[in-house]
Amino acid sequence: MEAVYFKFILSLGLVLIFARICGELSERYFKQPAVLGELVAGIIISPFLLGGLIFCDPIILNFATVHNPFGLQGDFDIMYIIANIAVIILLFQAGVETDIRSFIKQAPTGLAVAFGGVILPFIGGYFVTKALCPDVGIGGWLFMGAVLTATSIGVTVRILMDMGRLNTREGSTILVGAVVDDIIGLIILSIVIELAQTGEFEILEAVKIGAIGFAVWFGLLMIGVKLHKYISRYLLNPFKRSGTAPIVALIFGFIVAYLVTLVGLHPVVGAYVAGLMFSACQEKEEIVEKGRPIMLFAAPFFFAYLGMMVNLRLFGAPGVAVLAVLLIVAAIAGKVIGCYIPARFPGKLSHNAGMIVGVGMVPRAEVGLIVAAAGYIAGAISLGLYGAAVAVSVITTLVTPAMLKPFFKRQLVQVSQPVSDNSESSDST
Amino acid sequence: MEAVYFKFILSLGLVLIFARICGELSERYFKQPAVLGELVAGIIISPFLLGGLIFCDPIILNFATVHNPFGLQGDFDIMYIIANIAVIILLFQAGVETDIRSFIKQAPTGLAVAFGGVILPFIGGYFVTKALCPDVGIGGWLFMGAVLTATSIGVTVRILMDMGRLNTREGSTILVGAVVDDIIGLIILSIVIELAQTGEFEILEAVKIGAIGFAVWFGLLMIGVKLHKYISRYLLNPFKRSGTAPIVALIFGFIVAYLVTLVGLHPVVGAYVAGLMFSACQEKEEIVEKGRPIMLFAAPFFFAYLGMMVNLRLFGAPGVAVLAVLLIVAAIAGKVIGCYIPARFPGKLSHNAGMIVGVGMVPRAEVGLIVAAAGYIAGAISLGLYGAAVAVSVITTLVTPAMLKPFFKRQLVQVSQPVSDNSESSDST
Repeated sequence: MEAVYFKFILSLGLVLIFARICGELSERYFKQPAVLGELVAGIIISPFLLGGLIFCDPIILNFATVHNPFGLQGDFDIMYIIANIAVIILLFQAGVETDIRSFIKQAPTGLAVAFGGVILPFIGGYFVTKALCPDVGIGGWLFMGAVLTATSIGVTVRILMDMGRLNTREGSTILVGAVVDDIIGLIILSIVIELAQTGEFEILEAVKIGAIGFAVWFGLLMIGVKLHKYISRYLLNPFKRSGTAPIVALIFGFIVAYLVTLVGLHPVVGAYVAGLMFSACQEKEEIVEKGRPIMLFAAPFFFAYLGMMVNLRLFGAPGVAVLAVLLIVAAIAGKVIGCYIPARFPGKLSHNAGMIVGVGMVPRAEVGLIVAAAGYIAGAISLGLYGAAVAVSVITTLVTPAMLKPFFKRQLVQVSQPVSDNSESSDST
Repeated sequence: MEAVYFKFILSLGLVLIFARICGELSERYFKQPAVLGELVAGIIISPFLLGGLIFCDPIILNFATVHNPFGLQGDFDIMYIIANIAVIILLFQAGVETDIRSFIKQAPTGLAVAFGGVILPFIGGYFVTKALCPDVGIGGWLFMGAVLTATSIGVTVRILMDMGRLNTREGSTILVGAVVDDIIGLIILSIVIELAQTGEFEILEAVKIGAIGFAVWFGLLMIGVKLHKYISRYLLNPFKRSGTAPIVALIFGFIVAYLVTLVGLHPVVGAYVAGLMFSACQEKEEIVEKGRPIMLFAAPFFFAYLGMMVNLRLFGAPGVAVLAVLLIVAAIAGKVIGCYIPARFPGKLSHNAGMIVGVGMVPRAEVGLIVAAAGYIAGAISLGLYGAAVAVSVITTLVTPAMLKPFFKRQLVQVSQPVSDNSESSDST
C-alpha cells in the first residue's frame, strides 16, 4: 500500500510543476496573469487529456476517486481535499493582506454590486434556459439562473494580489461583493433545491438561512475590528517567542473556514473573514510575510485542479453548445453590467475601476460547479444542462484574467485609486 | 458530499492547533523540544483517546480510512497523504539547510555509525525475540531484528533544526548515518520478507537492490555537488523574476522524493537529497528563508499524526509488555552503543557529540511502523509481536527528545563543535 501514497506525492509534484511552468509562460510570453496559465496547465494535464493518455492511473494526474467511502453514497475525490486546503490558504492570505478600513468603507458599494451581479445573471440564466429548453420546467430554469449568480472569489483575488491591487477601491468592492454574493447564493440555492424537490418553497425559511449566514460572518468581522487587541494578546502573543504566531493565525483560519460551513457558507468565505480578523492586528505584517510563501506554494494547486476538472468533450454534445454559448454571454454580460452600474454610479468609481469590478465578478469557477452538481444530484437539471453549466463555470473563469488585464494597464497609465498600497504584494508571481 | 471535505478541513485545523499548543507547552514549561509536545498531542487527540470519545466520526480526528480503494486490497488512510507531504517538506528543508561540505566531510564517520547502529540492534532484536518467543521461528526473529535496525530521520532532524545544530559535526554524522541506514534497511527488509515468504533468500539479489538504491542516491548528491551551477541556471533562474524559484525547488523535492521510491528508497531520503542539491546553489539562502514558514506550518502535522497512530491499549496484551520492554532496552542500548563507538573512535567526536549521534539515531517512528506492518502483512510476525514492534517504534521516538536535551545543554557550556552555524535556524520553534 505504501506505493499508493507515493503516487500521490508524484501527482502533487507534477500538478504543481506544470502549473508553475504554465503560470510563468503565461506571464512572460502572453502577458497574462499566472492564474490563467495554471488553469490551462490543469486542462492540459487533466485525466481527459494528457494525464489520461500518459499515465492511465487512478491517482497520477487523475482524481483519485473513491466510491461510497465512510458509508456515504457518492464519489469522493481525495486530491480535492488538497485543492480545498490550497484555496483556504489563498483566501486567508487575501484576508490578512486586505486593508480592513478600505474593506468597510467599500461595504455599501460592494453590497449594491453583489445585488446587481445577482439579479441580471439570474434573469439571464432563467430566460435563456426557458427559451432553449422549455421542457425542463421551472425547477431547471431557476437552477440555471442560480448557476449564473455564483461568484468565485479565488481567481479575481489571486489576480488582484499578484498585481498588488488588493487594497484599491475596486479591489475592496469586489471582495465585499463576492462575500455578499456567497450569502445571497446560499439563499437562492436553498430555495431552488427545495423547489426542485418539493415543488414549493418557504421564502421565510430561505431568508432565515441567509440571515444566519450573514450574522455569523458579520459577527466574526466585528470581533476582528473591535477585539483585535484581545486576539493579539490571547491568541498570538503566547506563540510569539517561538516565532509561530503567523502559523497559529493560519491554523485559526482553517478552523473558522470549517465553522462557517455549519451555517451553510462556503469555507473560503470563512477563511477570508479569519484573515480579515488578523488584518486589524498589529502582527499583520509578520503574518503577511510568513504566509506568502505558503500561499505561493499551495494556491496554484487549486487553480490547476480546477482546470483538471474540465472535460472538453462534454461541451461537444449536441444542443449543449448553443445553450452554453448563450448562457456564457448572459453570464458575462449580466455580471459586467449588473456590477458595473452600482460600482460606477452610487459607488462613484471611475469607468476603469467599475469595469474591473464588473469583470472581476465574472468567474464562476468552483462555485458554479458546486451549484451545478447540487442541481444535477437533486434531479433539477439534466446531464445536458449540467454540461452547459460546467461550460459557463469554466469559460467565465478562463476569460477573466485576459479581460481584466487591459483595465489594469489603462488604470496604471491614468493614475489609479489606491486606498492604501500593499508593498508586500509586489514581489509575488 | 461537500460536507465530507469540510470535515477534513476541521480535522487538519484541530490536529495542527493541538500540536502547536502542546509543542509550545513542551518547550516553555517542560523545557523539551516542540516535537515531543506534538507527538504527545497526537496521542491525546488520537481516535483511541480524545478523538474517539468526543467526535466518533470516521474523519474528524480519525484516520479517514477507506477500504480497498482503486481496486487495491487493503486500507487506505487519506490523512496519511498529508502527513507524507509534511515530512517531505521537513526533510527537503533540512537538506537545503545542511552544509553540504560538512555533510561530505562526515560521510566516513556517518557510514561507520550506520553500520554500528544496524548490527547491534539487529542482534538484540533477534535474540530477545528468540529467547521470549521461541515458537515464532527464524522469520519472525529476523523481522524483529529488522524493526530494531530502522532509523527515523524526522524526529532528530527536527530537533537539530529547532536547536540550530543541523550543521555541527554530530548533526552531519546523524544525517549521513540515517541516509545509509535507510539503504541498509532496504537490503535487510528485502531479505527478511523473501525469507519469510519462501524460506530462503538470495543475498546477491538483496545486495543488488541496496547497490542500486545507493547509486541513485549518491548520483543525485553528486549532481548537486558538481552541477549546481546548471541547476541554478536552468531550473531556478527562469523563475527568479516571479520570485518563485524557492517554490520550484520545493516542488522539485517532491518529484525526487517520488523518484527514489522507484528503487525502493523512502521518499524522505529523496526529499533530503533534493534539498542537499539546492544547498550547494547560490540561491540557498532564499530557498531556506521561503521554505521555513512552509515547513513550520506543515511539519507538526506529521509528528502529531505519528502520535495519533499510537493505540496505548495495544500494549496491554499479556506477554507483550515484557517482550516490548526488553526490545525497547535492546533498541535504545543497541543504537546508542552501536553508533557512539564509531562516532567517538574512528570519528573522533567528543563524548557529548558521540552521545548526541548515538541518541539521535534511536527513534524508529514511522520507519519502524512500516517495517512492522510489512512483517505482519507478510505473515512473518503475529499480532502480539506487531504490538511489541509498535511499542518499540513509539517509545524510542518519545524518549529521544528528552534524552538528547541534556547533551545539547552540556555541549553549549563546554563549547560546541560547529562546522558552520546556521543563523536561519535560531528563530524557529
